[in-house]
Amino acid sequence: MLDQTKAGTLIERAIAEIRRLAAAAPGVRLPSIRRLAERQQVSKSTIVEAYDRLAAEGVVEARPGSGFFATARAKPFALSENTPKLDRAIDPLWIYRQALTPRAGVLHPGCGWLPDSWLPADIIRRGLRAVARDEGANLSAYSLPQGFWPLREHLARRLVERGLAVEPSSILLTDSGSRAIDLVCRFLLEPGDAVLVDDPCYFNFQAMLQAQRARIIGVPYTPHGPDLDRFASLCAEHRPRLYLTTAVLHNPTGATVSVGTAHRLLKLAEQHDLILVEDAIFTDFEARPSPGLAALDGFERVIHLGSFSKTLTAALRCGYVVARADWIEGLTDLALATGIGCSDIAAQTTFRLLTDGSYRRHLEALRPRLAKAMAATSDRLQRLGLTLWTEPEAGMFLWVELPEGLDSATLAMRALEQDVVLAPGNIFSVSQNASRFLRFNVAQSGDKRLFDVLGDILGSEASQPASADFTR
Amino acid sequence: MLDQTKAGTLIERAIAEIRRLAAAAPGVRLPSIRRLAERQQVSKSTIVEAYDRLAAEGVVEARPGSGFFATARAKPFALSENTPKLDRAIDPLWIYRQALTPRAGVLHPGCGWLPDSWLPADIIRRGLRAVARDEGANLSAYSLPQGFWPLREHLARRLVERGLAVEPSSILLTDSGSRAIDLVCRFLLEPGDAVLVDDPCYFNFQAMLQAQRARIIGVPYTPHGPDLDRFASLCAEHRPRLYLTTAVLHNPTGATVSVGTAHRLLKLAEQHDLILVEDAIFTDFEARPSPGLAALDGFERVIHLGSFSKTLTAALRCGYVVARADWIEGLTDLALATGIGCSDIAAQTTFRLLTDGSYRRHLEALRPRLAKAMAATSDRLQRLGLTLWTEPEAGMFLWVELPEGLDSATLAMRALEQDVVLAPGNIFSVSQNASRFLRFNVAQSGDKRLFDVLGDILGSEASQPASADFTR
Repeated sequence: MLDQTKAGTLIERAIAEIRRLAAAAPGVRLPSIRRLAERQQVSKSTIVEAYDRLAAEGVVEARPGSGFFATARAKPFALSENTPKLDRAIDPLWIYRQALTPRAGVLHPGCGWLPDSWLPADIIRRGLRAVARDEGANLSAYSLPQGFWPLREHLARRLVERGLAVEPSSILLTDSGSRAIDLVCRFLLEPGDAVLVDDPCYFNFQAMLQAQRARIIGVPYTPHGPDLDRFASLCAEHRPRLYLTTAVLHNPTGATVSVGTAHRLLKLAEQHDLILVEDAIFTDFEARPSPGLAALDGFERVIHLGSFSKTLTAALRCGYVVARADWIEGLTDLALATGIGCSDIAAQTTFRLLTDGSYRRHLEALRPRLAKAMAATSDRLQRLGLTLWTEPEAGMFLWVELPEGLDSATLAMRALEQDVVLAPGNIFSVSQNASRFLRFNVAQSGDKRLFDVLGDILGSEASQPASADFTR
Repeated sequence: MLDQTKAGTLIERAIAEIRRLAAAAPGVRLPSIRRLAERQQVSKSTIVEAYDRLAAEGVVEARPGSGFFATARAKPFALSENTPKLDRAIDPLWIYRQALTPRAGVLHPGCGWLPDSWLPADIIRRGLRAVARDEGANLSAYSLPQGFWPLREHLARRLVERGLAVEPSSILLTDSGSRAIDLVCRFLLEPGDAVLVDDPCYFNFQAMLQAQRARIIGVPYTPHGPDLDRFASLCAEHRPRLYLTTAVLHNPTGATVSVGTAHRLLKLAEQHDLILVEDAIFTDFEARPSPGLAALDGFERVIHLGSFSKTLTAALRCGYVVARADWIEGLTDLALATGIGCSDIAAQTTFRLLTDGSYRRHLEALRPRLAKAMAATSDRLQRLGLTLWTEPEAGMFLWVELPEGLDSATLAMRALEQDVVLAPGNIFSVSQNASRFLRFNVAQSGDKRLFDVLGDILGSEASQPASADFTR
């Protein structure tokens, strides 16, 4: 009796403690049974009992193999918890953070941007100095609601030259291309709305859409754009609100939508009352820009957006959205409410570099350099037995296929052990059917060590059975 | 016949009100028939009729046993459509856009920031030059996931000096204070979650929370902080997820939470499992910073955030969030997914100005200048018959009350005709009970014409009956 009472009290005390921890850290993993038993100086069975009761109450949640977590109910929204805990080499967020936190000696052929040394720091330096020197520059006030007018005027002119019918008033400047996509998604989507993305696609599209609580539907991608039959049937089945794509120099494949596919896409969009969101972030890598989607449609159903983070600098953020006037008004209100517009100093600096010829000259030097790296990398990869899915016309990405029986996640894990961070196909794939693919950034693949490491692993892997379940 | 017409008008009015509420909170439960009848001072059958018509239109949805809910429609989210088209002088977004689009000859005493001439453009100029000159500066790469380390280290040191226990690793840099608040709200809130805000509060809090589809609950504000009895009962009634406040130099009132109130707030937060989000954007206006909320709690339940947009420059955006390590990790993932971090050039420039003494010297000159403007403005307003709600210890805001019988929205409309953009109380008020108040920015109130215009209107208004319904 006494023992029972005492045990009861100990359990109650453990319950109170776990309750406190769970309340303080919703969504977070709670201490292990062993650790809590030690801390409370009780037996492990007492803690097990306490956890069980709280699990029954719904205060905590048992996740086999991972322990107990404070329940989802009151938990903060966590992108990384929406997917099972992945091995580092196949967790997009981990790879992303690694690439953003460079360490000496680590190679990043899976990274999504150009190396520092390929970007024109001197030009940025000159731009900042010029803005600092300019007596008329705005160095203290907020920008206009839609952003620095001269830059919008210039962007409109550039887009008109590409065949897009754009007025400066239908452009909203943002702090980055990602921020532009995010604004558009928040503006157009209700939680639970279906959104079509390419399969494979830029992995951050998935994270962004998760943040907006959208239902993500993948449409198979071909070297000419999305598979139109599947696109049509997915529209009928899911009634998506929008389709989000990198139409020109697609990420991760490097493909570009053909004019014919674009035309039929727009017809499908009209038929299914769908909005097309076109991320044009890589278009400037092309010497003769492909039309993409907006040029065909004149902004009836297409939203066009971009930035200079990939082609000029990622340290000075400046992006933009082009859309119908009524949408731009709503997007501007949302941008004001959630960030009070964009940096006017970034916009003024970008304007200078776009108008004084610096950006044009930089691109003219960059394109052949990328083409050369593309040829060299594709050659080296093919000699290792990898196959090109398509031959991109420009840009930095190569989407390559491993020989049958090999798995890119396994490869990525083994490469990581040798300080090479790869981008295995499934981090881009909604359906997870890209396990034989890898994305290479040709500008980040200049180091011979990369191919030595790949060669070693491929040599040894070829003789081993492939791993069936890479998420283990 | 006449009665029928009158009933029709009452129904129309009820429909307009429900439409407004439904647009503001899609998916959320609308007020009960009884409550709305009381509020509109009409019979319950009028409200039933109004709800029925709107249900037929699909604007609301009846859920048996639960009442009426705003239909979650698939239309673009438009902040400006959440309220009926307001007269310009009382539409917060219109006032905001006006202040952001300055025109010669228009006075903006209702504006929420310092005039350009009060901000140190020369210092920014020097900072930009120094970064451009620095061979070690990052001018092309993305920032680290949490932002430029030396700035986080410096911010941590500053905060430690104010009694906050902060590590650089628990700071996330953002592109602005608004972006910081928005990130925190997106991270912590599910659509439909209740959020407490001060009544009155910074009007953008409401727009931001609407964007997150939160239920906004106002808690009456006193000169020492929120009314604690009401705070407690609202916690019990609505089970809010968080409380969002400008604890030090509150916007719009200029009041600062007392230590006693802060202590009791934290106890209530613990009791009701509530997170407190403290926007510290004005703290640097104080020579001896008030403790606010985070200093008492050590980041158990408080999230602290701020920026330099109000005190240094709004053209170079740099804000920050301080929170528990596990939340910072989730916030960082969300920041990467929705904007790939912040501008590293902005962070490096801010770091220089914070560490080379420029910012300190600027603040030392700014504070007495603000104090002088505060004294002059409060004197002039009182001579016009207006009453100070409290005497702020620092900062730029004065919250003043009109004589009985006068309405600040009417006053604002008349002032607008004479190119004076005021900030009438109800743009800040969730309950719309601040119709006799105005917010003045003392740094924007130096022009004698302002007081001449006010004097003229007050002189003529005093002899007229007040407008009862300013939203007409």
